[in-house]
Amino acid sequence: MIDLYTWKTPNGRKPVIALEELHLDYVVHPVDIGRDEQFLPGFVAVSPNSKIPAMVDREAAVTLFESGAILQYLAETTGKLLPASGKTRYSTLQWLNWQVGGVGPMFGQLGFFANRAKEKLPLAIDRYLIESNRLLDVLEHRLAQSAYVGNDDYSIADIAIYPWVVAVITANPTLLGDARERRPSMDRWMATLAERPAVIKGMAVLQDV
Amino acid sequence: MIDLYTWKTPNGRKPVIALEELHLDYVVHPVDIGRDEQFLPGFVAVSPNSKIPAMVDREAAVTLFESGAILQYLAETTGKLLPASGKTRYSTLQWLNWQVGGVGPMFGQLGFFANRAKEKLPLAIDRYLIESNRLLDVLEHRLAQSAYVGNDDYSIADIAIYPWVVAVITANPTLLGDARERRPSMDRWMATLAERPAVIKGMAVLQDV
Ligand SMILES: N[C@@H](CCC(=O)N[C@@H](CS)C(=O)NCC(=O)O)C(=O)O
Ligand SMILES: N[C@@H](CCC(=O)N[C@@H](CS)C(=O)NCC(=O)O)C(=O)O
Repeated sequence: MIDLYTWKTPNGRKPVIALEELHLDYVVHPVDIGRDEQFLPGFVAVSPNSKIPAMVDREAAVTLFESGAILQYLAETTGKLLPASGKTRYSTLQWLNWQVGGVGPMFGQLGFFANRAKEKLPLAIDRYLIESNRLLDVLEHRLAQSAYVGNDDYSIADIAIYPWVVAVITANPTLLGDARERRPSMDRWMATLAERPAVIKGMAVLQDV
Repeated sequence: MIDLYTWKTPNGRKPVIALEELHLDYVVHPVDIGRDEQFLPGFVAVSPNSKIPAMVDREAAVTLFESGAILQYLAETTGKLLPASGKTRYSTLQWLNWQVGGVGPMFGQLGFFANRAKEKLPLAIDRYLIESNRLLDVLEHRLAQSAYVGNDDYSIADIAIYPWVVAVITANPTLLGDARERRPSMDRWMATLAERPAVIKGMAVLQDV
């Protein structure tokens, strides 16, 4: 049984998609970051970095934060969604890292300066808009060559990237323009993922809370 | 033989430290990001995300970008610097992801708004200063409990984090105040790493170019 501490955000949805794909037993514990619950002592004991998601695998007595590490843990303990060795293993980890280090932080900063910040700062908005468009172009280029992002098969790289691409496009319709229409390979990949039952469940986690 | 495409920046130093620790043969190819060489077609063919570092393992015909994936590749192919299984494996990957997704992007944004940007924006500087100090506090808390960051042994998590901690402290002496003095466990860990020959070599890569 896995205890998942999460919220209805892109990073929070990733482990739910993976748990659903892998048919693992889990319980969702909501951590409302809009109410600063990530700073409560009970959660900090699990996630000393005060960010969601985090998880506890009760049988293995493993506690983890950082979505990339959680996805890799779930993949390696089940032997699915990440090749065990060879080139495809590392291309998958490469694109997973690209999400964790690039897509997540940069789309996140765009969200802050373009939408949440009261003061609108053109220098900051431009910086993150240019980088977000560049990252979407890198994704389009990759998906013009490969059915999925990490390798030819669906993997934890797709699971990590998809919720962020949906979020940035949904939150910035005007700034990003026809983001999907201008990127046909990305559009095809998004349509494929949107039909997976595990993706549907993960994207809807805690939506009624 | 490994071809390493890199530059004298925190992300660029990480793979050099790992290659030195592992006594692997490698050749450094400088990519001067101050001159936009990351956008030249020859480099983009290796690193389609146009960032350093990137590497090619000639024998295995593996091409990789993203420093986290490169560190994991080097560790797994040699069986060193990352436990093969168990709790310590995942705590190490957790802290590696914490660097890739948090420390790197946030210290990087502080560097941009506090130092490189011509226009000084208090909202942006404060945002990244608060987050950088918070991340250093999380590191201090971790190192008060553990000799190294990932687990009790030196690992790729330390290799990923150290160059960034040195960089943020060096670049922001006034903003960050007595960053080391106020964090005795982090200070002890920095002093230990600073003495490792591989760390000395990695931190000095391309310094005379
Ligand atoms: N690199 C981390 C990022 C986690 C993260 O930024 N989580 C956000 C929600 S999507 C959060 O907890 N924010 C609350 C806060 O920053 O205080 C991961 O991939 O797990
Ligand atoms: N997540 C990436 C980040 C790489 C990165 O940001 N590299 C910087 C230098 S430290 C770079 O190439 N910057 C040039 C640019 O952004 O155009 C990694 O860990 O490898």
